[in-house]
Amino acid sequence: MNRKPLRDNDPARWLYGRHAVEAALANPARRCRRLLALRETEAEAKALLAAARAAQTPNSVELLDRRALEKLLPPDAVHQGLALMAEKLPGQDLDAILKDAGDGSRTIVVLDQVTDPHNVGAILRSAAAFGALAVMTTEHGAPPVTGALAKAASGALEAVPFLHVANLARALEQLKRAGFWTLGLDEDAKEILGTLDLPPRIALVLGGEGAGMRRLTREHCDFLVRLPTRPAMPSLNVSNAAAVALYALADRTPES
Amino acid sequence: MNRKPLRDNDPARWLYGRHAVEAALANPARRCRRLLALRETEAEAKALLAAARAAQTPNSVELLDRRALEKLLPPDAVHQGLALMAEKLPGQDLDAILKDAGDGSRTIVVLDQVTDPHNVGAILRSAAAFGALAVMTTEHGAPPVTGALAKAASGALEAVPFLHVANLARALEQLKRAGFWTLGLDEDAKEILGTLDLPPRIALVLGGEGAGMRRLTREHCDFLVRLPTRPAMPSLNVSNAAAVALYALADRTPES
Repeated sequence: MNRKPLRDNDPARWLYGRHAVEAALANPARRCRRLLALRETEAEAKALLAAARAAQTPNSVELLDRRALEKLLPPDAVHQGLALMAEKLPGQDLDAILKDAGDGSRTIVVLDQVTDPHNVGAILRSAAAFGALAVMTTEHGAPPVTGALAKAASGALEAVPFLHVANLARALEQLKRAGFWTLGLDEDAKEILGTLDLPPRIALVLGGEGAGMRRLTREHCDFLVRLPTRPAMPSLNVSNAAAVALYALADRTPES
Repeated sequence: MNRKPLRDNDPARWLYGRHAVEAALANPARRCRRLLALRETEAEAKALLAAARAAQTPNSVELLDRRALEKLLPPDAVHQGLALMAEKLPGQDLDAILKDAGDGSRTIVVLDQVTDPHNVGAILRSAAAFGALAVMTTEHGAPPVTGALAKAASGALEAVPFLHVANLARALEQLKRAGFWTLGLDEDAKEILGTLDLPPRIALVLGGEGAGMRRLTREHCDFLVRLPTRPAMPSLNVSNAAAVALYALADRTPES
């Protein structure tokens, strides 16, 4: 068992919360090093470990008292008595994802400067819930993949490919060559999502919490649409907007 | 100008962030006591004050340096250089809201034990965006109406009536007597939202982040529905679920 403290440059991270820990232990692509529990969650942790399918799993559950567990985690972490030290998932490759995507209707989510890890986590969760192919964001200007992001994703970090690309404009062009149409969500757009007849393969592009999409990103969008919101409150929280758009697009394309 | 420090039992609160401050100053039902700005947001604050329509407005903008401003606000408050001390909004009365609602299609949002102020704020914002009549929650088990909630609501706290009721089951019965059908969102429900032919007046009931609706609340629902999510990720973040349901219900009932 590896008991070294976690350093900033360590490729491993503490995941916490029931769904995030369970999903990571169940993911064959994960290497998990330590599983911590409280006395009251020991049985649950042992059951999760017994069912684990990860590439590497710890030998046993380590019992800590609440204070010792919370010292290892960020303040206010909603850990539910479970913490897992896991290595980062291997980097995902857009080419490989597109190759596996088949020819049918698919939606891929593209985030341009969405910075709040809770928003990104919630978007991953909605992407998994509505069957999106992947979530893509930038290497710079996106939040690191922390335990807080994984907790908000509620296990979806293991379920949906999450890509970080160096150049978003170039990645959008790559998506277009693979048959995707880029659809930007913009509160100032004239067209309303849900009233348009859209092609089967869509890259749904969402801008950041403050300023929205960057100009260059917007210029790479084939369509700009808004949600059917009231003029007095034209925009939603970005994760709420993503959920609505994913629902509207999933509604259009049955099962994929 | 009132310079007394804010005590816990003070009915006033610090609101912060551009949209929350602007909307509160524009709300004739608000009594605003102090408006704080940084040097770089002074012009913006003066413009907001000049346009204010609140029942009470401060005489002038107080300039602070960033450190002094942040000492008054919760840690990590995203204040955007603006803070407003405002009294709580007067309590809202369900009878009066129902009387003003008219006879057409209306949706009211009911939250049972949703505890995260960011979720409640985002739900208020989506409720305003999709034209909901009001958002209702419980006096106990709901988060206090803090600056963090108001910031997440992005001004919607001033736009949508936000009610706190002592007894949710009794309030649901009152809604039924006013012609509303109670529709609970539940990931285990058989029926799927969007495939049902629903009556024009709907109370959309959402349970808390962890355990969902309480048993008694569920028993007061006329319908239980789920969103069309994949089996591997059946539930969304509660504010995302609310946004999707409000969109689906707004789509059904054109303008109200």
